[in-house]
Amino acid sequence: MKATSAATVRGLGIADTAGDFVTRALEEVQLTLGGIEGDRHFGLTAKAGVREKRHPRGVEIRNARQLSILSVEELAEVAATLKAPELSWQRMGGSVLLEGRAQLTQLSPSSRLVFPSGATVVIDSENEPCRKTARALAQPHFVKAAMHRRGLVGWVERAGVVRVGDVAKIWEP
Amino acid sequence: MKATSAATVRGLGIADTAGDFVTRALEEVQLTLGGIEGDRHFGLTAKAGVREKRHPRGVEIRNARQLSILSVEELAEVAATLKAPELSWQRMGGSVLLEGRAQLTQLSPSSRLVFPSGATVVIDSENEPCRKTARALAQPHFVKAAMHRRGLVGWVERAGVVRVGDVAKIWEP
Repeated sequence: MKATSAATVRGLGIADTAGDFVTRALEEVQLTLGGIEGDRHFGLTAKAGVREKRHPRGVEIRNARQLSILSVEELAEVAATLKAPELSWQRMGGSVLLEGRAQLTQLSPSSRLVFPSGATVVIDSENEPCRKTARALAQPHFVKAAMHRRGLVGWVERAGVVRVGDVAKIWEP
Repeated sequence: MKATSAATVRGLGIADTAGDFVTRALEEVQLTLGGIEGDRHFGLTAKAGVREKRHPRGVEIRNARQLSILSVEELAEVAATLKAPELSWQRMGGSVLLEGRAQLTQLSPSSRLVFPSGATVVIDSENEPCRKTARALAQPHFVKAAMHRRGLVGWVERAGVVRVGDVAKIWEP
C-alpha cells in the first residue's frame, strides 16, 4: 500500500434527521470506529440491506457503509450531463465531499484516506446511484447520469477529527 | 457486487501457540466478527504494525488482517519456482486454504467469500511475503518467489461456521 495522491475536504455532513438520509453540513466531524455518532449509518455493525444482496436482509454484518464520500469534480460532471446548475452533495447523503482527485469513484476498494489528525477511512466500494437519491434531487435521470460517478462508501479504520479544509492523503493497494 | 466464481476450502487453521504464527489444522472454525477466537490475529481492533505504514506503530485501528487466505494453486506455483517439493500453508500462517480459483492473490480488494453457513470474509488486500515466513519455511528465496502469489488478508463481515470441504461463493465489486 502506497501514498499516491491527495484530496481536500470541501464539505462534511451528518444525517441526523429522523427518517431522512439528507445530511446537514458541519465544519468538523469526529470519526469513531463506528462512523459519525448520531448519523443514521453509524455503527460497528449494521443490518444487511438491499445493497448487500450476498446476505439475507436483516442479518447482522460488520458495517462497511458508514460514510458516503463524494467529489466536487464528479458532481459537476453529473450536473453537466443532466444540464442542471448544480447537485447538492447533502441531498445525496454525502458525509465527506472531496476535491482534487479526478475520477474518485474509480479509486480502488481498500484504499485509505488518511486525514491530518490520523483519522482514516477505508474505501469499501463504489456507491450505486438509486432512485431515492434521484427523487431527493428532483432529477429523474440521475441514476443513469451518475453511474460510476456517485462516489464511494467506506468505514473508519482509525478514529480522529476531520475538518473542512483538511488535505487527505490517499493510499492505494 | 456480483457472484463471479467459487472455491473449495481445503484447509482451516488457527495460530494459537504463544509467540508463533504457524497454524494448527482444524476441520472447522467458528468465524466471529473479530476473526477466529484464540488466534493471534483475533480482534475487532488491532495495533497498527509494520504492515500499516500509513499509521504510527501501536495506534488502535480496526482489524482488517484477521485471516490469511491462501490457494493450493499458488502454493504449487511458488514451490515449483523454488524447486521445493511443497510449501506448508500452516507454516505460512494460513487460516483458510482454498482451491479452484486461479490467481487468488489478484482477487479485487473488497471481494467477499460467502460460505454455505452464511459466514462471510471480506478481502482487505494482498499479503506481502516476508522474511519471517521465508525462515519458517526454510526457503531463503521465498520472498521473491511468492511475490503476488502469497494470498490475501481479510476480515469477517458475517459470523458463522466454516468447514473443510465447503464451497465458498466469491463476490467481486
